[in-house]
Amino acid sequence: MFLFFSTECSEQQAILSPEESKHCVRVLRKKIGDEVLVTDGKGRLIHGIISTLSKDKTIIDVKSIKEYPPSEKSLHLVFAPTKNISRIEWMMEKCVEMGIHSFHPILCAHSERKVIKPERLNKIVLSAMKQSQRFHLPKIHELITLNDFIRNIDDSAKRILCHYEPGNIQLKDIDWALENYVLIGPEGDFSPEEIALLKKSNFKTCNLSNSRLRTETAAMMACATFNIVS
Amino acid sequence: MFLFFSTECSEQQAILSPEESKHCVRVLRKKIGDEVLVTDGKGRLIHGIISTLSKDKTIIDVKSIKEYPPSEKSLHLVFAPTKNISRIEWMMEKCVEMGIHSFHPILCAHSERKVIKPERLNKIVLSAMKQSQRFHLPKIHELITLNDFIRNIDDSAKRILCHYEPGNIQLKDIDWALENYVLIGPEGDFSPEEIALLKKSNFKTCNLSNSRLRTETAAMMACATFNIVS
Repeated sequence: MFLFFSTECSEQQAILSPEESKHCVRVLRKKIGDEVLVTDGKGRLIHGIISTLSKDKTIIDVKSIKEYPPSEKSLHLVFAPTKNISRIEWMMEKCVEMGIHSFHPILCAHSERKVIKPERLNKIVLSAMKQSQRFHLPKIHELITLNDFIRNIDDSAKRILCHYEPGNIQLKDIDWALENYVLIGPEGDFSPEEIALLKKSNFKTCNLSNSRLRTETAAMMACATFNIVS
Repeated sequence: MFLFFSTECSEQQAILSPEESKHCVRVLRKKIGDEVLVTDGKGRLIHGIISTLSKDKTIIDVKSIKEYPPSEKSLHLVFAPTKNISRIEWMMEKCVEMGIHSFHPILCAHSERKVIKPERLNKIVLSAMKQSQRFHLPKIHELITLNDFIRNIDDSAKRILCHYEPGNIQLKDIDWALENYVLIGPEGDFSPEEIALLKKSNFKTCNLSNSRLRTETAAMMACATFNIVS
């Protein structure tokens, strides 16, 4: 069954935004009295009945609520957006389907793209969450420099840098913590100064694959690895 | 270094097609005497020197040849092409980067797309092989019906069907054989009759993930799983 998203959920009612309402009325042709599923993106799955319906606002009377706890271990993907943004959009969609906690776009020395459109990326992530019937909406953080990212990173989290070096541990053999930040290099890789800074900042380097992967493939591979072995 | 592809390789010379030659001359602006890398897509990496150069034909004198054996275990991905072909094109590119032996597009009861353009898909696969510095070109088989596929499948190969059922083994826990055929359902999933036929044909059902994945995400996830655990 189609999953709606609402930021206005109480124990009694869930209210759909104009965008979700339009989809409800025009695409799915729902009617008053129809049963629907709604999530708040914070772990709640609401089963309800449409009581008010228009293309601007839909009200759903709550019949039951099920709480889904977040997964015990979290993956935070840190990556430099690619020149061709569609590669990143696809990657983000796939990572949401496979299960990810948050996205941290960063600016590196070799970044060719300095701007992203958060609204568009948020839409893609929301749509992928609904499509894959997940109930936790991954957060997309603001695009910041690698330096600022390092300054702000949670002290207790595991810091992992995917950067091929002979003799490195494989990502699949990492001992995952509860919170895991995985860094993927930009299209021209990190600069030697950035690698040195990351190592100094306690990032553990690991190898992701034996072959050369594009940035977005590396990100998906990291996400799949976490999903499979964590 | 950029990797060229040639189907005409001897111990002495590698000859580039007009398409590869154009890229060599116009995009990479190579000159006679320049060193280049060429693969035949059958495991050979050729290191050579350009001796003749034009936009129609480039001849490379071989300096050395290195043979890369195929990986011990092979993954053959069996999937129904999606309505939106770009989803399959992306998936194929990613699977080549992660390492795959062959693609088997099939027609199922719920297939919405009945035709594919092999030339375009071959170009994508070739480009992904070169980009990821792999030396074995994955084969794209002809689009055939699920029935024909089952009739022709190699008897000694492992047969795996990704189809969620409670209590199934996870794909990551499969005991991989040397040759492995992994089936991914179409967008509307396999029909109950197809599932029954596949089970009767000794396909082992397994679960790929705990969440609902799109066809192309499931294919990439299967390929990543094979890459990680086989």
